[in-house]
Amino acid sequence: MTTPLQIIQTNIPPGYIDLGAGEPQIDLLPLEMLRNAAAHRLAMGDRDFLQYGLEQGDGTFRAALAGFLSPHYGMEVSYDDLFVTSGISSALDLLCGLYTQPGDTVFVEEPSYFIGLRIFADRGLKVISIPTDEDGLDLDSLSQALKEHRPRFLYIIPVFQNPTGRTLSPQRRQSLVDMAHKHGFLILADEVYQLLNYAQTPPPSFGLYLNSGNVIALGSFSKILAPGLRLGWLHAHPNIIQRIVSSGLLESAGGLNPFTSAIVRSLIENGDLEKNIAHLRNIFATRMQVMDQLIRKHIPQVNFITPQGGYFFWLHAQGMDATGLRKKAQEYKVDLRPGVLFSSRRGLTDYFRLSISYYGVDQIEKGILRLKECFKG
Amino acid sequence: MTTPLQIIQTNIPPGYIDLGAGEPQIDLLPLEMLRNAAAHRLAMGDRDFLQYGLEQGDGTFRAALAGFLSPHYGMEVSYDDLFVTSGISSALDLLCGLYTQPGDTVFVEEPSYFIGLRIFADRGLKVISIPTDEDGLDLDSLSQALKEHRPRFLYIIPVFQNPTGRTLSPQRRQSLVDMAHKHGFLILADEVYQLLNYAQTPPPSFGLYLNSGNVIALGSFSKILAPGLRLGWLHAHPNIIQRIVSSGLLESAGGLNPFTSAIVRSLIENGDLEKNIAHLRNIFATRMQVMDQLIRKHIPQVNFITPQGGYFFWLHAQGMDATGLRKKAQEYKVDLRPGVLFSSRRGLTDYFRLSISYYGVDQIEKGILRLKECFKG
Repeated sequence: MTTPLQIIQTNIPPGYIDLGAGEPQIDLLPLEMLRNAAAHRLAMGDRDFLQYGLEQGDGTFRAALAGFLSPHYGMEVSYDDLFVTSGISSALDLLCGLYTQPGDTVFVEEPSYFIGLRIFADRGLKVISIPTDEDGLDLDSLSQALKEHRPRFLYIIPVFQNPTGRTLSPQRRQSLVDMAHKHGFLILADEVYQLLNYAQTPPPSFGLYLNSGNVIALGSFSKILAPGLRLGWLHAHPNIIQRIVSSGLLESAGGLNPFTSAIVRSLIENGDLEKNIAHLRNIFATRMQVMDQLIRKHIPQVNFITPQGGYFFWLHAQGMDATGLRKKAQEYKVDLRPGVLFSSRRGLTDYFRLSISYYGVDQIEKGILRLKECFKG
Repeated sequence: MTTPLQIIQTNIPPGYIDLGAGEPQIDLLPLEMLRNAAAHRLAMGDRDFLQYGLEQGDGTFRAALAGFLSPHYGMEVSYDDLFVTSGISSALDLLCGLYTQPGDTVFVEEPSYFIGLRIFADRGLKVISIPTDEDGLDLDSLSQALKEHRPRFLYIIPVFQNPTGRTLSPQRRQSLVDMAHKHGFLILADEVYQLLNYAQTPPPSFGLYLNSGNVIALGSFSKILAPGLRLGWLHAHPNIIQRIVSSGLLESAGGLNPFTSAIVRSLIENGDLEKNIAHLRNIFATRMQVMDQLIRKHIPQVNFITPQGGYFFWLHAQGMDATGLRKKAQEYKVDLRPGVLFSSRRGLTDYFRLSISYYGVDQIEKGILRLKECFKG
């Protein structure tokens, strides 16, 4: 069923340039930093992190994480308000289990992260999508939808969104929190790109609103360190955290990733996480500029807004069928992600997503030149 | 809500001897082995295990694990039939999501692991318990229950059971598989103690029957290495594995624990896992003999069968209320787990569980002597 002894998830055919891929480039994964952190932590003699861990996650790790996040988030983060997850996907699955029943309605953005939509579908949830514009979620459309539906939660990627690259404006955030409070739904804010800003500092994390009791902000080490760690965090009011840690799964398993937490704690405390993020911002800022200019030069048929952070370009090829474009692109050994993959209404057929995460500037240029050919004739 | 900066899940008051605790003793967690394994793996230069991992789990790790398990399981294990989990609890939760709907019926043993029961309750499942005897699950009772119910699965701990310490006899295993096939339910075999045999080699793993398509055998590194790793495996027919890896959660997150898998792979390949299990068997065999003799000598009021492996003594204090006994024990700064915790019928009130996992022989003796006092007058 799989290539023998395959290790990684993606399997890009040799010679292809998959400009649609949203995984980080393997060369950017900080092996040496993890090697040093593991050597440090495992030499200390303490072995508490090998035991069944506290359900909420290692307190010393949460303290280090809170100290790291506070300046980045533009707010004081308390370790009491953090819960250690094994990544955003499994946190979403866990939250669906705690806050929904099959048949319940949830809201997502149109467009949204397509594999997130799969998790909701597997939980038997009815997904209603709310349009977005340049400033993120359209609150008038949300108001309208709230007249017809009672969602359990809204799943939103409020910063450098996947796939649009757009950020929910500060003005809309407070209004959204007020609406959530009034209508009794949760906001699940997937902030996986929060720290990957290149040209614009994003608004503070949704953690700013956690006292409303309606907000759960989700963070991850997948994009700022390495996806293979399966480590992330959830930032919420203690009442919400109490509900999570009291679940059967947490009582049985203990904390979700104590061993990896302990190693990453060293990497935070020695300053390497900060260094790694600075390094990634440098690299990605360059790639973003390069891709921006290349698209403008070689594919003038598409319209887009230059992203200010994150991974993604969201391109509008007015009137074209992006699924057909993808087939043609594959003949040229280049790939993209058609907009329809991100639509829970099977719409957005003339949009497509490109990413800066997986290739350096040379390959990006080569890929865009191949894509240029597909737009000819 | 928690002790500041607490790392581990258990919080035994100072001076207490909690002979009920089922966690491994912290001194037995092989820090040096993990230190060596991490140093080895992270020095190799390869960084595939830092990427989003193959949904089924790192193929090279599965190959090492299959090679390790084959002689222990008394059968040829193929890496194609293994799926890497983040421990048995989360595997159970995942399987509930894939194979049940809220309101469905599942069968468990009476008694059974109490936190497993919580996971099923959180999923909205109706739990029916089937009596056990010295040879494990009572198949006549199972037949009877199958006339009234159509379970989605039977959850069973077939080797050195928690809490009874008993093992399902070889004769009953084939019959059980036949019944599962006939009645269309799955057998979820939690074999967490399979490799911890001291006095008796248990029957081969339920993996022996995986071609029936009705068997999922669950293993874990929690008891043979360290719980904090959150790493385990699931052994099943490829059709079942295909269904798991196609779920939204796996597609989104990739493999469940690639980083830790890679480190543990080194620990398997260099022979340390084998050594660690041999070491644990030695230690636990002694503790089991010691506790056995101490109970017979000091608490003749209880009846029990000497366990042949695993962690647990299951003691019958005919006519006593074990919950009351626990209260009294706590006054003497010793603890136990009353049988009612393991009953989904609130029965077994005159049974209690003790464990050899958390204390060395000196503390075990001290604890049993304290318990002796509780039985006086």
